[in-house]
Amino acid sequence: MNDATPSSPVDWTYRLGLARVLHGSGPVAALRRDGASEARLALVDGETFDDLPALLEAARGDAAAIEAGAVIDAPDDRLLSPVGRPGKIICIGQNYLAHVHEGGRDAGPAHPDLFPKWHTSLAAPFAEVELPPESEQIDYESELAVVIGVRARRVAVEDAERFVFGYTAANDVSVRDFQFHTAQRTAGKAWDGLTPLGPVVVPAALLGGVRPDLAIAGTLDGEVVQDDRTSKLLFGVPELLAYITTVMTLEPGDVILTGTPAGVGFVREPKVFLRDGAEFEVRIEGIGALRNRFVDEQAGRRS
Amino acid sequence: MNDATPSSPVDWTYRLGLARVLHGSGPVAALRRDGASEARLALVDGETFDDLPALLEAARGDAAAIEAGAVIDAPDDRLLSPVGRPGKIICIGQNYLAHVHEGGRDAGPAHPDLFPKWHTSLAAPFAEVELPPESEQIDYESELAVVIGVRARRVAVEDAERFVFGYTAANDVSVRDFQFHTAQRTAGKAWDGLTPLGPVVVPAALLGGVRPDLAIAGTLDGEVVQDDRTSKLLFGVPELLAYITTVMTLEPGDVILTGTPAGVGFVREPKVFLRDGAEFEVRIEGIGALRNRFVDEQAGRRS
Repeated sequence: MNDATPSSPVDWTYRLGLARVLHGSGPVAALRRDGASEARLALVDGETFDDLPALLEAARGDAAAIEAGAVIDAPDDRLLSPVGRPGKIICIGQNYLAHVHEGGRDAGPAHPDLFPKWHTSLAAPFAEVELPPESEQIDYESELAVVIGVRARRVAVEDAERFVFGYTAANDVSVRDFQFHTAQRTAGKAWDGLTPLGPVVVPAALLGGVRPDLAIAGTLDGEVVQDDRTSKLLFGVPELLAYITTVMTLEPGDVILTGTPAGVGFVREPKVFLRDGAEFEVRIEGIGALRNRFVDEQAGRRS
Repeated sequence: MNDATPSSPVDWTYRLGLARVLHGSGPVAALRRDGASEARLALVDGETFDDLPALLEAARGDAAAIEAGAVIDAPDDRLLSPVGRPGKIICIGQNYLAHVHEGGRDAGPAHPDLFPKWHTSLAAPFAEVELPPESEQIDYESELAVVIGVRARRVAVEDAERFVFGYTAANDVSVRDFQFHTAQRTAGKAWDGLTPLGPVVVPAALLGGVRPDLAIAGTLDGEVVQDDRTSKLLFGVPELLAYITTVMTLEPGDVILTGTPAGVGFVREPKVFLRDGAEFEVRIEGIGALRNRFVDEQAGRRS
């Protein structure tokens, strides 16, 4: 198959990316290991994503010129979501044909299908994720996430590359009963802490640019349940950017979740949902893996 | 009728609220004129909304204790959206029965119908608003907006009052063709600069608490096209807070647009849309009015 075969251990080498680590003054972490050389990039969060293009350019030229941060070379529960407080998280529905078909539709939508999450929904890439008691229908969705590097409005398809910083992985965890309370998906998608993101943001240039062809897989308790390639997106990254930025400005650090491949739990027979103790891994070739254990929330916490 | 009769001039007295004014160090402005006394409140923006409850408490006791800012006592095009960069703007669809009916449905939704805008969509209360060239179907929606004062998760209906800071007015301008590109309304609602908000945020306690009964009216080029009362919301403010905070945390400065009354343009016969030179006013009793002139955008601006 390819080097992201879900049953193999995560390959933590050959990766240049940006992560965010929990410690003290909240600095950085990022890594590059391409054979002998190793570079580290200063951390950026949502506030300073504007500096990314310069940082990356510098890193390619002279790695030592970049302020060092912690090196992440293995799954580490100190890792945070690589983007802390994006101004926007825009999700795309119905964007792999096999997923469209498993949902009972013949064809994908004529335009990108946009729905929201907000920063409060993010979770760390190796976090233990609490399942809220309000639902018994909590489902996984493995997704490629795009992180914007440059402020963008009315971007032409052919100019999209300039505005994309890079890619990371996401689990667009979905609360199916709430998702179908109305025709709008918002209430099923924007739950606190149900969107693991990370572990690193890898520059698009290292992953095939704006038409990446990466293996993407989802594994539930050791069984591969989603397995596809990002080249099969119905609306590719340039088309998504062009459509979204017709409507609104995207800012550095904004995140687009590009949609999930076939294999989600609620259309299986019998239906499959995340239960106390479940472990779900989203793995994307060249980026790495999110791996989260899901546990029942102990008690509904009120403000 | 009542003191918000759309054809009367805006009453700029008897109002305590928070506004935001464009000048220099971006300070404050707010006003209270109740007969002889006058108080001014220090400005808050999205970053410092946490201080609001204390500020307001102080203002009621001893107005002079509050740092003075500019006084707004008339429509003023230096006014900004009173909330600058809310982390969330959550909009509610189908929340007045007459509006549900004019859309061809018999009954409102069983649960609140949530869709997003983001901070990039806000506009100042007296701004000249540019109509994007991508659509000929741009429509108005007069709405009561709720501004959150206290971080809120899993709020019970009976506890909602503690979490609401106050109310302001909004025009949920909607790009109808994009709204119906897919089943998700996002692409019709999140356009840059198409959501005038303001002019002031008035504390809920001064407007009847969390069950306000305020006249709300929309006027297009001098003709009243929407006219209802906020007591007719299908899901009231407490029910909206309870539902939304089941799903996600609301933070100080977050905004909820509670839905529009009947009378929107695209269901009229013939259809009515905003055209170059149109003036639309959203007026809410006790808050004041947004009044925006809509003009054709001169040229599609790219990044």
